[in-house]
Amino acid sequence: MLHPLRQHIEQITPLSDKEFEYILSHFTRKKVRRHQFLIEEAELVPYEFFVVQGCLKAFHTDRNGKEHIIQFALEGWWISDYQAFFNQGPATMLLSSLEEGELLTISLANRNKLCAEMHKIEHFFRLKITAGFIAMQQRILAGMNLSVQERYEKLLKLYPDLAQRVPKQDIAAYLGVSRETLSRLRS
Amino acid sequence: MLHPLRQHIEQITPLSDKEFEYILSHFTRKKVRRHQFLIEEAELVPYEFFVVQGCLKAFHTDRNGKEHIIQFALEGWWISDYQAFFNQGPATMLLSSLEEGELLTISLANRNKLCAEMHKIEHFFRLKITAGFIAMQQRILAGMNLSVQERYEKLLKLYPDLAQRVPKQDIAAYLGVSRETLSRLRS
Repeated sequence: MLHPLRQHIEQITPLSDKEFEYILSHFTRKKVRRHQFLIEEAELVPYEFFVVQGCLKAFHTDRNGKEHIIQFALEGWWISDYQAFFNQGPATMLLSSLEEGELLTISLANRNKLCAEMHKIEHFFRLKITAGFIAMQQRILAGMNLSVQERYEKLLKLYPDLAQRVPKQDIAAYLGVSRETLSRLRS
Repeated sequence: MLHPLRQHIEQITPLSDKEFEYILSHFTRKKVRRHQFLIEEAELVPYEFFVVQGCLKAFHTDRNGKEHIIQFALEGWWISDYQAFFNQGPATMLLSSLEEGELLTISLANRNKLCAEMHKIEHFFRLKITAGFIAMQQRILAGMNLSVQERYEKLLKLYPDLAQRVPKQDIAAYLGVSRETLSRLRS
């Protein structure tokens, strides 16, 4: 069976065995527990994460202690605090694991090295971050234009198995509504 | 004097005269009038735009006719409806010019061709879209956490001369407040 990262990259560009071995040597395997923090408040963010198995959430806790979820990540998704990761500054959000799982981590130096050495990897990461940019821009648009009900349906369409894997309060925190409002939407 | 596009690309990667001439040959110059539409509702979006001179806004008009501004673009910024541009689908937002100006336009085919032929251009566009992704993610975070006053100050910090160049109602439409609320913030 192909490695999940290889499968994932080969959706965009073919790789030889040797190329994939070389790429993989720049990543580190990391097992995560449920509720483990991968990015903590105001700390540096040395890694980007690729989800091999599990479910993560990137979130922000506001001055009133209310949690807002910026992004979920399931198998085959990349996640980090990109502002902090690319600028090597302090975290602007938190990242934690909702399930036991397995990640691959890559440092900025290794990511830049792979991009510089292999044009096809720079191409791969350009397409990935472009998809992320589009998703963020569409999320801003949705916030301007869609009802909570429509955004809820859009979320379930984007991540069909999310409702089974994520606590209701996290779905509510992504949509920016209370659990009670979410329950009314679900019924 | 260096061409503005060359100056802009060379902030990331050096170019020879021959390389720049080749890159520029993939763009088309476009003069724009004030209030000219560059992306119209539901139409295809064949171009990305680089602002040589002028000021553009990407926006969305909701079901109640209220305008929401997604992004401004001044000199040295790239702008398009990236969802529509990269997927060659119908527009999800509108783009119009706030001032008379000059743009460079590039088609998706030419952009992909330059990226495939020149690793340094793929690198340049990867860094540019990464900065865009970070800006969008930080905008979502700001919407979750900052007051309108703080978001107004952040906008003026990001675009110091915007207040002089953009009508007050457009700044209000970016912040998602009424003109009256904005006037209170400004005083």
